[in-house]
Amino acid sequence: MTTAAPGPRALAHPDREAIRLEAVLHALADPLRLKVVRELAACDGDVPCGFFGLPVTKSTTTHHFRVLRESGVIRQAYSGTAKMNALRRSDLDALFPGLLDSVLDAAEREDRRLAASGEPLTDA
Amino acid sequence: MTTAAPGPRALAHPDREAIRLEAVLHALADPLRLKVVRELAACDGDVPCGFFGLPVTKSTTTHHFRVLRESGVIRQAYSGTAKMNALRRSDLDALFPGLLDSVLDAAEREDRRLAASGEPLTDA
Repeated sequence: MTTAAPGPRALAHPDREAIRLEAVLHALADPLRLKVVRELAACDGDVPCGFFGLPVTKSTTTHHFRVLRESGVIRQAYSGTAKMNALRRSDLDALFPGLLDSVLDAAEREDRRLAASGEPLTDA
Repeated sequence: MTTAAPGPRALAHPDREAIRLEAVLHALADPLRLKVVRELAACDGDVPCGFFGLPVTKSTTTHHFRVLRESGVIRQAYSGTAKMNALRRSDLDALFPGLLDSVLDAAEREDRRLAASGEPLTDA
């Protein structure tokens, strides 16, 4: 089930109980989407899409944010003309305790490991 | 880097240091592949592909096992004509501590939640 959009500019989000592990893992499995999630986790607040400066087109950026929203990983809302983004940490932590933190930790470890070995970072 | 195949029937696997978080999450994001991983985690040993009885064609089953192997989630080896499968738990736990367990726990919780709500299980 998805919360009904109350107006034309509102964005559809799955309710907490409609969030599925498969969709969350798929959302996190892309390096750019994982980069967004890591930055949102570090910010701990609402962040506009433009902040992230992803090295892709605007339409691809929009696609990645939609995957994150429709999977239940982030919440998006308009603020004027900007889309603001926030991690749905309390929903994810309630449904899948420890999962988000273990993925964030795994990403940190991988970055450190690749930096130490001289390989390029996967999320750059 | 991938370990060189020592013979024509050997199967290529990434070395531990070549395993990437993105590929592991992608491998786990499919319900049939996650089902295989959960059963391998429960078995704690080598299991033939035929054991799992996935509700898909043989070629699709082979594809799913290849994704799991090439991402570093499982190790496959021939035993006679059967391909045997084992979870690479020690590699995954060393690279990404807590990740596999949190995914397995999340899948258990989701099953219980959906069973309680009368919805079909996602990995059936």
